Amino acid sequence: MSPAEAQGVGRRRLLFGGAAAGLGAVAAVGAQFAGGRNDSPELTRTALDTSGANGAETVPFYGRHQAGVATAPQAHAAFVALDLRGGVGRERIRSWLRLLSDDAASLTQGRAALADTEPELAGNPARLTVTFGFGPGLVAAIAPHLAPPWLGPLPAFSIDALQDRWSGGDLLLQIGADDPLTLAHAQRMLLKDSRAFAVVRWIQTGFRHAYGSEAAGTTMRNLFGQVDGSANPRPGTPEFDRVVWGDTQIPAWLEGGTSMVVRRIAMNLDTWDELDRRGREEAVGRRLDNGAPLTGTAEHDEPDFDAVTPLGFRVIPEYSHMRRARPEDPRQRIYRRGYNYDAVPEPGGTISDAGQIFVAFQADVRAQFLPIQERLDKLDLLNEWTTPIGSAVFAVPPGAPEGGFVGEQLFG
Amino acid sequence: MSPAEAQGVGRRRLLFGGAAAGLGAVAAVGAQFAGGRNDSPELTRTALDTSGANGAETVPFYGRHQAGVATAPQAHAAFVALDLRGGVGRERIRSWLRLLSDDAASLTQGRAALADTEPELAGNPARLTVTFGFGPGLVAAIAPHLAPPWLGPLPAFSIDALQDRWSGGDLLLQIGADDPLTLAHAQRMLLKDSRAFAVVRWIQTGFRHAYGSEAAGTTMRNLFGQVDGSANPRPGTPEFDRVVWGDTQIPAWLEGGTSMVVRRIAMNLDTWDELDRRGREEAVGRRLDNGAPLTGTAEHDEPDFDAVTPLGFRVIPEYSHMRRARPEDPRQRIYRRGYNYDAVPEPGGTISDAGQIFVAFQADVRAQFLPIQERLDKLDLLNEWTTPIGSAVFAVPPGAPEGGFVGEQLFG
Repeated sequence: MSPAEAQGVGRRRLLFGGAAAGLGAVAAVGAQFAGGRNDSPELTRTALDTSGANGAETVPFYGRHQAGVATAPQAHAAFVALDLRGGVGRERIRSWLRLLSDDAASLTQGRAALADTEPELAGNPARLTVTFGFGPGLVAAIAPHLAPPWLGPLPAFSIDALQDRWSGGDLLLQIGADDPLTLAHAQRMLLKDSRAFAVVRWIQTGFRHAYGSEAAGTTMRNLFGQVDGSANPRPGTPEFDRVVWGDTQIPAWLEGGTSMVVRRIAMNLDTWDELDRRGREEAVGRRLDNGAPLTGTAEHDEPDFDAVTPLGFRVIPEYSHMRRARPEDPRQRIYRRGYNYDAVPEPGGTISDAGQIFVAFQADVRAQFLPIQERLDKLDLLNEWTTPIGSAVFAVPPGAPEGGFVGEQLFG
Repeated sequence: MSPAEAQGVGRRRLLFGGAAAGLGAVAAVGAQFAGGRNDSPELTRTALDTSGANGAETVPFYGRHQAGVATAPQAHAAFVALDLRGGVGRERIRSWLRLLSDDAASLTQGRAALADTEPELAGNPARLTVTFGFGPGLVAAIAPHLAPPWLGPLPAFSIDALQDRWSGGDLLLQIGADDPLTLAHAQRMLLKDSRAFAVVRWIQTGFRHAYGSEAAGTTMRNLFGQVDGSANPRPGTPEFDRVVWGDTQIPAWLEGGTSMVVRRIAMNLDTWDELDRRGREEAVGRRLDNGAPLTGTAEHDEPDFDAVTPLGFRVIPEYSHMRRARPEDPRQRIYRRGYNYDAVPEPGGTISDAGQIFVAFQADVRAQFLPIQERLDKLDLLNEWTTPIGSAVFAVPPGAPEGGFVGEQLFG
């Protein structure tokens, strides 16, 4: 304890006098809150009138797949990348993953985490999910021979301007919730319980439309104003299962799991704003007002890539994002579940620091994600206004069985 | 245009070829979007099924008072402080305020702003409000003799550790909405239309519970887990009107207006966590589970400041926040409308950078806010875990009349 800290504790002791003996005794806190897990949240539930409120909605934590992938995207998400501390090996990683899994299992169900110091903030789960992604360093520290072949940095693309501060990471926690206060509390608890094992590498926070702000199932808009994600397979369909979970996973411990690509893509809103409406629609290949392909009238109309204008140009231009991103092979599909970000501009300017946290789930990064990205790297008009500044790849283990922990299959 | 920019435009022209003539022609964009104000939002409304969605809710912009004060706090807020550029005088300030008022009048009603380049992002107002606060520099540039006597930095308090980067500002825009995407778009439009007049001094973004996450009227919780703001006067009551708008304002141009104190208060969640539950409740004077005074059972029970424990200590301790913040004189009341913040921790650590954007509205800073703050500065146990790191005071003009602009009374 530093002298300043000691003085602080001293002053607090003095102020409390006899009425609050034991103050500052960290050891006592554990005892105080060991029981908090079971009773405090109930107190909270009683205190709140949640009738008609959506904060009480929960998503199961245990199951064959991890939550937060097929889960309808929540309004808010934090992507927390952690790096192992030196000397933290296989056995301590096991303890860490068990601790974080236990925290997630409680918090997502609206119960305080073990030793939760703000149990009242846990009582409003708001569809909280915590999704674990394992980076190359984590798998190497547990069972290096079990790393999937695609687990590592993506090849360099010509459009990339990657920064270390937004790239890589040993463990990713994707924390999603419809309530920002719930998210803040869950993030804090998970970070506190990580302190002995890891340090923060980066955190990205993002948003979509608020829960209830639009009709359920509305495709999100990005900060360019585009309807974004229309071509996604729909959770609950066989196509989604094939794209995301795959038929068979190699290695076998990933059965029921998937892979996750997280890329921070800066969007230059200023140069985009110089473009007229028609130019924007042609850059994407879709109408701005409702996201319909330029050859259709509704968002989910099948695009006609052969249609031509009276002047003989393709209605959906050759360089449009939609044409370039379209799979050439039906296996080349991904499931996108990204978020907008809008960081605070630097003081002294009015330039925005905005973009998208691009998130893609697919069973196999090389077979599904890479071919699309390579096509977009070669030609995609949207590249003019977007710049990838961060990139990371994670293996997403299957869900934990009841009472188990995420990643336990790796420990054999 | 820099060579790189010229190259970018050149490449875009090349790629578009004949199909998108006029691309990059900024002049044409104005014409393209001059009509956008009236028709584009309607397109958006048609495209979206907003049945049952709360994104369509609006708060009037024009009126006797500005919106965003008596308005039930939205889930998200951005506090944007701008400094005048050199040479921007009274007449240009008038143009700026008219422009921002017109933007706010449209955006808050779900209509695109003039020359809105992402009109689709305006179609979901989600109770958007934009509240203008005038700092000392702005009033001095318009009509220095009309500055209210309290408009300036607060006196230095012993607990303060103020940073320039979170303090002061010529114009404050408080932007609130229940949808983070709506907020991001409004902020961007207002910043774009400010470029010729001002630069960003600071931006603070904050959150409360999501809309619909809790029952309407639930008092917010801060990141210490406390029910925070129970003692607030209730909007719509004569007491609220007296506290916030006052009986008579001096100077007269502020009739229908108020004052706003914005302070960034860092909360040390780590040392707070060392405290046991009883210690926390005594620090505040309220129960953690439901915010009831320690002498009561429900949040809004009248506290009994004279009650003593069997050992003779005050049940609501002398040093508790609630006792220290309680008005000694019924005139010393304020209306708090703050937000939580949870900034991203520095890479390499797990220390949080969290706290509260403290916001107080009161007719007169000196008569209402200062006496409370002086008492808290002298003794308030919460000071042990909180540090004010930013501070600013703004005059909040009355609302604009239909078709007018905020602050026009100052131009005489």
